[in-house]
Amino acid sequence: MGATMIHGPGDVRLEEVADPRILRPGDAVVRVTAACVCGSDLWRYRGVVPVREPGRIGHEFVGVVEEVGTQVRTVVPGDFVVAPFAYSCGECFSCVRGVQTSCERGGFWGGPDRNGNLVDGGQGEHVRVPLADGTLVKVPEVPDDGLLPSILTLTDVMGTGHHAALRGGVRPGATVAVVGDGAVGLCAVLAARRLGAERVVIFSRHPDRQAVARQLGADDVIAARGEDGVGELRDLLGAPGADVVLEAVGNQDAMEQAIAAARPGGNVGYVGVPNGIAHLSIRPLFSRNVNLLGGVAPVRAYLEELLADVLDGTLAPGRVFDRTLPLDDVAAAYAAMDDREAIKVLLRP
Amino acid sequence: MGATMIHGPGDVRLEEVADPRILRPGDAVVRVTAACVCGSDLWRYRGVVPVREPGRIGHEFVGVVEEVGTQVRTVVPGDFVVAPFAYSCGECFSCVRGVQTSCERGGFWGGPDRNGNLVDGGQGEHVRVPLADGTLVKVPEVPDDGLLPSILTLTDVMGTGHHAALRGGVRPGATVAVVGDGAVGLCAVLAARRLGAERVVIFSRHPDRQAVARQLGADDVIAARGEDGVGELRDLLGAPGADVVLEAVGNQDAMEQAIAAARPGGNVGYVGVPNGIAHLSIRPLFSRNVNLLGGVAPVRAYLEELLADVLDGTLAPGRVFDRTLPLDDVAAAYAAMDDREAIKVLLRP
Repeated sequence: MGATMIHGPGDVRLEEVADPRILRPGDAVVRVTAACVCGSDLWRYRGVVPVREPGRIGHEFVGVVEEVGTQVRTVVPGDFVVAPFAYSCGECFSCVRGVQTSCERGGFWGGPDRNGNLVDGGQGEHVRVPLADGTLVKVPEVPDDGLLPSILTLTDVMGTGHHAALRGGVRPGATVAVVGDGAVGLCAVLAARRLGAERVVIFSRHPDRQAVARQLGADDVIAARGEDGVGELRDLLGAPGADVVLEAVGNQDAMEQAIAAARPGGNVGYVGVPNGIAHLSIRPLFSRNVNLLGGVAPVRAYLEELLADVLDGTLAPGRVFDRTLPLDDVAAAYAAMDDREAIKVLLRP
Repeated sequence: MGATMIHGPGDVRLEEVADPRILRPGDAVVRVTAACVCGSDLWRYRGVVPVREPGRIGHEFVGVVEEVGTQVRTVVPGDFVVAPFAYSCGECFSCVRGVQTSCERGGFWGGPDRNGNLVDGGQGEHVRVPLADGTLVKVPEVPDDGLLPSILTLTDVMGTGHHAALRGGVRPGATVAVVGDGAVGLCAVLAARRLGAERVVIFSRHPDRQAVARQLGADDVIAARGEDGVGELRDLLGAPGADVVLEAVGNQDAMEQAIAAARPGGNVGYVGVPNGIAHLSIRPLFSRNVNLLGGVAPVRAYLEELLADVLDGTLAPGRVFDRTLPLDDVAAAYAAMDDREAIKVLLRP
């Protein structure tokens, strides 16, 4: 089958690899019908995270179950399923507490599982899914092309934006500022609106992303960054900061801006992979009682709830996709996102 | 009057200073009947925070109102009052949201107010209280000597321990670990118990403090620190950490231990003044979804609620005092706390 490999910075290729097969009784094999490129894939593509050896990449996919192991109970061949960006057992201490990204038996796509066997990446034609019962969520019927992008966002960016908003404590009446206008930031706008935020402000300098943010529910856009941006936010809100700030970038400047943008006693819900954050100063948090909540999003915990909203039409995060390419053109997809020509690229195998 | 001055590391003296008087219509002058020494006073005493010039010190006091300005409405001469460790207006954006330590007009004892006038420290015979209506809480009657220590803890340590527990999200059924066996850590035990924690574990190596912790409601004591301590905690709980960890020290080791001691998705409620924390690594927070909540405690927000419990006998944090000295012996009080001979010293002017 074809699968995406990353060889080094700027070098991703669709290559022929072995077809996956069932290795453990809890496995399933899924035929991928849609995948996509994530901002976090760019960490390696840009060389921020080193690529020590060529490897699989991609962690967002939906598709149809082709085969299941003997212990799989919740899905059967033919089911259309959504996979979160981490696989998990659903039964351990952390899973039952909704922190599936800390599953004792789980892991991430594209690397070895706990038995040392490769788990396929999401940007390929098929994926072996360990712990299928804990991991996969069945969609009642095969979605049409209109719903597919929104369902695909539930594998990562929409669930991640929701995690930021939920952990950040967004509730009816809250003022919310979003740092980051990538797909996660845009989904965070939607998530904040969905949780009842009274006013949502996004920091964005890109007219195309500003437009999408407004479509998804942002009331205001601030183009300035850093101290200037925070000053504009305070003027706009007539307050010393927002009740909740959602950080969806993961670099030092974005995090510092997020902390400064929160009101005293406010919350920063952060989900940006902090590869760009060396250290955090504690004084700006301590002195103003700004709480820092979040982490690698357990999107599996939110899949059923968000899927229901997507299926009934009340949640449409699919708008974060502004380009669709065949999987064969995965290199072009990375280049478009790296250049910020595209917000998020959907790949069709 | 007599007031405590700090001249440099290890050098505090009771000195004769000018009696305070009403300077603004919102001021009150309080005659101090009890004060105490705080772990945070030791930062300067130990030279961790530099003493640039001799200055007043002390921020915990209760006493009797002697005089009020023309605009003061809530207290009159003769009232017995409790003062939180920061004065605040009670009316600004942050005050109405319960974050009085970020009051727009407020400040801390022992330094200049926003008009440039000295505000007395708490370890003295009298204190000018700015913003008296927002700051002081009246006790219905002059408390007897049995209740006085517990009421005095509401000026800082009990309110601070409560802040850690509240922000940390302690609720019925929660497992709680406390890092720090000073007065704040001990009060955090009590606060966690009060909020319904199912099990409270404290890290402590000092037999006398272990005993007080058990009296205040700790179920278990772990003498080991760092990784060993965290390992013991996990074994004890049969879990990858506590639901909530309360950090009441403020140095690097304590904070790292607190973060490691939380379960995935758990909370660290921190209130230790982080003078000993240079930087925080974000990875241990992000990867395990450990939330960091807390800051400089707005104890004013909790005064009425906690006072009611002290007055009806359901809350007795006064046990953290294990020594009482006359104010004249303030230097001995500091020395005893610095040597860890005393947990907390009560001073009687």
